[in-house]
Amino acid sequence: MKVLILGGDGYLGWPTAMYLSKRDHDVHVVDNYLRRRVHAEAGSGSLTQIAPDLTNRVSAWREVTGRTITVTEGDLTEWSVVEQVFKDLTPDVIIHYGEIPAAPYSMKDRRRSVLTQYNNVINTLNVLWAIHEFAPGSHLVKLGTMGEYGTPNIDIEEGWLEITHNGRSDRLPFPKLPGSFYHCSKVHDSTNIEFACRAWGIRATDLNQGVVYGVETEETKLDPRLATRFDYDEIWGTALNRFCVQAVIGHPLTPYGKGQQCRGFLNILDTLRCVELACTNPAEPSEFRVFNQFTEQFTINQLAELVQNAGKEIGLDVAIAPVENPRVEKEQHYYNAKHSELLKLGLEPHLLSETLVGHMFDVIGRNRDRVIADHIMPRTTWRGSLPAQAGESPLWQPGRAKELVVD
Amino acid sequence: MKVLILGGDGYLGWPTAMYLSKRDHDVHVVDNYLRRRVHAEAGSGSLTQIAPDLTNRVSAWREVTGRTITVTEGDLTEWSVVEQVFKDLTPDVIIHYGEIPAAPYSMKDRRRSVLTQYNNVINTLNVLWAIHEFAPGSHLVKLGTMGEYGTPNIDIEEGWLEITHNGRSDRLPFPKLPGSFYHCSKVHDSTNIEFACRAWGIRATDLNQGVVYGVETEETKLDPRLATRFDYDEIWGTALNRFCVQAVIGHPLTPYGKGQQCRGFLNILDTLRCVELACTNPAEPSEFRVFNQFTEQFTINQLAELVQNAGKEIGLDVAIAPVENPRVEKEQHYYNAKHSELLKLGLEPHLLSETLVGHMFDVIGRNRDRVIADHIMPRTTWRGSLPAQAGESPLWQPGRAKELVVD
Repeated sequence: MKVLILGGDGYLGWPTAMYLSKRDHDVHVVDNYLRRRVHAEAGSGSLTQIAPDLTNRVSAWREVTGRTITVTEGDLTEWSVVEQVFKDLTPDVIIHYGEIPAAPYSMKDRRRSVLTQYNNVINTLNVLWAIHEFAPGSHLVKLGTMGEYGTPNIDIEEGWLEITHNGRSDRLPFPKLPGSFYHCSKVHDSTNIEFACRAWGIRATDLNQGVVYGVETEETKLDPRLATRFDYDEIWGTALNRFCVQAVIGHPLTPYGKGQQCRGFLNILDTLRCVELACTNPAEPSEFRVFNQFTEQFTINQLAELVQNAGKEIGLDVAIAPVENPRVEKEQHYYNAKHSELLKLGLEPHLLSETLVGHMFDVIGRNRDRVIADHIMPRTTWRGSLPAQAGESPLWQPGRAKELVVD
Repeated sequence: MKVLILGGDGYLGWPTAMYLSKRDHDVHVVDNYLRRRVHAEAGSGSLTQIAPDLTNRVSAWREVTGRTITVTEGDLTEWSVVEQVFKDLTPDVIIHYGEIPAAPYSMKDRRRSVLTQYNNVINTLNVLWAIHEFAPGSHLVKLGTMGEYGTPNIDIEEGWLEITHNGRSDRLPFPKLPGSFYHCSKVHDSTNIEFACRAWGIRATDLNQGVVYGVETEETKLDPRLATRFDYDEIWGTALNRFCVQAVIGHPLTPYGKGQQCRGFLNILDTLRCVELACTNPAEPSEFRVFNQFTEQFTINQLAELVQNAGKEIGLDVAIAPVENPRVEKEQHYYNAKHSELLKLGLEPHLLSETLVGHMFDVIGRNRDRVIADHIMPRTTWRGSLPAQAGESPLWQPGRAKELVVD
């Protein structure tokens, strides 16, 4: 298959590229290094040392495996980039990780909120038009998030819900209660893609993914230059990855609020396999297919206790010190999300265990001197004071709409 | 009340401004004339002669009534504009008409699709941040559209649906099946606003409006310079308004496809009253309240027949000649949308009758020489060929995201 991976420099994008290249697919990756730049701006960064750019990454991959991954460095909100990539490649499948994925980032201030929605919505719209124009038979595999659903008081189905109301029935998109402007942007994408399937006959699979944990894959382990990034800070890090870093550096684990929040989780190895399963079992023309991509549900407190116990095994004394919840979310709620479709296609989950956590401790320990501790505690709140904005971003300069319309 | 009207130069925005000014509210309007410019670009325009800009409109209003409406000419996607208006005014209520409202425009090509979503999503995000920062107790009255719901096979409720599933229940956002990228943009806005109510405690009313018809209001009739715009072309015109123009100029009425498509409709006079009712009965803090704002349901064929019969009354021989449907939509479907909440608040509907249509014929007849006939027939299709794009718009110049992140 000719596989186009958007966001191919990311935590999941880069391992996916190597995983599929190893399995004889022709892989092309696109990235604009936005995540790297945002980290550089903030003074934070990946725990793991990663190669400086995609050119270096694919060179190392070629050297280690003899296989070729091709690269475009570019921004998907620019049509010229998207157009060129689609014209050159005519992909069979597009794996779309190319989005800003951080809830705290989107809530920090107006500028970041707008950038998140601008980036995610416009680049996905561009991808839909490119599929329509240049690759109408291709299959869009879009990374979504379980966070689109929020925490409704009913079972969460896989994207669609059979609803009976006043004696009539229909199968309709599952109602969404997103928890940040980032999560809203993913709902927007789902809305646009579902419409494009209906209007244009596009094939799409939306992978509503849970929280991913893990540092390594079979491919990243082949050579240090093939490592993937690993974020643990308050903006880009996720609960389990952050807890493991806290345990290793002797920082108390910091569940937010009551810690009864329940979410779906999965191992990075399962992400790769799920994406592969979606690609090799494509959606039908006009089908907007949604899979809930996670393997287990945990509360945040359960994760903290697991990390605490895994720490004990190796003599780490891990404290748990809940902090005031910076988010607006329900801290006690019903949660039962279905996730059977990927299992039906053949997924064999790697379940979370203290052994896996112990392995993460090893990797984190080797990179311990790279941890920037003052980016771990939450500073971004959902209701906090609004920081003054110095200057204005080039995104919304006066007069742009005027030029746009009359050009 | 201090009322801020966004999109105050539009078909509904300008009459709303005068209606509320007449009723002793302090009215401030904002517009960037985007609609006027898009028309100028396309060579189309309003049937009615309208004053050249808002300055002229409010001067005429002051001359005729002695009342003052204040004006900002500016683009709501620019934060500096939104910030200044909110700081200066600290409105009690924000009536948000400031969006690109045309389904065909959003489907014409990628550029217009992106502009529609960019404009609508970003300006509404800016408004939410401005409310949060400068006017947290104010009430957002957002004009939505019945087109967000599409045509599900169940009764359409007002924004929310009580769902029972596997023995558990919750009240959740009504599932949406939008019918164009424009309609998708309105769903995006609803998603963002509902989230902002939950996260920030904002008060909001979403008026999911049906198709509006009518040319005049009590206020527009006071003076020719107070006329509101009236669109009848394939891009901006809506069914009944376009049929009336076709009847007057001797053009066959052109239902799309089978003409069995059923929608909700309302008189422009009822739009004004509904908006007033929403303003004077505000939503509670944290409440995302949705009203379905229409008074009657009709199929397109029923509208065509009504216009045909009204034509007979005055000796017009009106033909009906269906055309191939340029849209992707169900042409035969169940449709039963609730619309009781505004009636409960006191709305007394002006129902559609041949008399009203006859009155529209009069106004159109007086402007007959202004009709540009070759913009009436549909040229924009949902699945059509994609026109070549000459050049690229200034909206997505290379390098912008880079500047944005590191600035």
